[in-house]
Amino acid sequence: MTTTSPRRSDARRNREAILASALTLFARDPNASMSAIAAAAGVGRVTLYGHFAGRDELVEAALAAAVEQSDRLLAEVDLSGDPLDALVRLIRSSWRQVEANSAALDAALAALGTDHMRASHDGVLARVQEIIERGQGSGTFRADLSADWLTAVVYSTLHTACAEVTSGRLAADEAESAIIATVTSALVA
Amino acid sequence: MTTTSPRRSDARRNREAILASALTLFARDPNASMSAIAAAAGVGRVTLYGHFAGRDELVEAALAAAVEQSDRLLAEVDLSGDPLDALVRLIRSSWRQVEANSAALDAALAALGTDHMRASHDGVLARVQEIIERGQGSGTFRADLSADWLTAVVYSTLHTACAEVTSGRLAADEAESAIIATVTSALVA
Repeated sequence: MTTTSPRRSDARRNREAILASALTLFARDPNASMSAIAAAAGVGRVTLYGHFAGRDELVEAALAAAVEQSDRLLAEVDLSGDPLDALVRLIRSSWRQVEANSAALDAALAALGTDHMRASHDGVLARVQEIIERGQGSGTFRADLSADWLTAVVYSTLHTACAEVTSGRLAADEAESAIIATVTSALVA
Repeated sequence: MTTTSPRRSDARRNREAILASALTLFARDPNASMSAIAAAAGVGRVTLYGHFAGRDELVEAALAAAVEQSDRLLAEVDLSGDPLDALVRLIRSSWRQVEANSAALDAALAALGTDHMRASHDGVLARVQEIIERGQGSGTFRADLSADWLTAVVYSTLHTACAEVTSGRLAADEAESAIIATVTSALVA
């Protein structure tokens, strides 16, 4: 029997390879099979199922990995200064993350449902809500609707744009400006 | 062997009972099981699976039944006159349908995915888009964004309100006015 250390490091490498392959394959096909993901990661089905008991569990882990990466990038966005400018900066950065992970998000939505998806975005949404509340206080954003609701509107506008681009009803290079024009009109006092 | 006629009418009654039970149970719990639906409909599991090969097929049929009923009600909405007034009438009527079927919509979204859900609403969305195009022509609605996109914004605002009410972040009696205030600001030129 060998020491456990190399085995653990093999296990970690396998897990990372599976998650990376899952995100790559989901980006091409949200219905990518477990077998295809195992093959792309260079592991057998037994190893795959050793790490993830089922497809939903793998999708959930892939979503968590994508969200964690996005959160790190979004944490770098400057939220100071004019609330509308800050919100636009955060939307631009968020949209780049949504675009990069759109197929994984589709797969996650189908597998996990809207509540779970929304919950996985709590970190990002807290930052959106913080700017909205500051902007309501300063009179930049409307105060006749709750910050909770306006945060949900920002979130849903981004995800609607993602779905519309995927379906071909919205040109990818028009999406960012459509999101910003829509959110600005909906939120500005 | 009896004639097929009474059997066929039994089959139709069973199918209708299963769909009605599915909608009732989904309204309480989007994860209602096939066994619970069979029990509520007063049929055995063999009969249930004779009509619907699996849960997704049943959810799809229940969604289709709910959408068909909604389409009939929405077809009665007067779309003439001022485009904004017409859109508000259509939103009010749509919101009542969404509220009545919110849990079934959640179950359908989880089982079928966003694309399928959106496609099932084609009839309603065509009516929304027709008003928006007329309003863009008359100068009531903005023309810097496409009618396709503005239609998607209306659709997503309704469904976001549904999710926010379900999650408890938006009071049910404030939802309709929040939807109308948001859509009006986002669309009016």
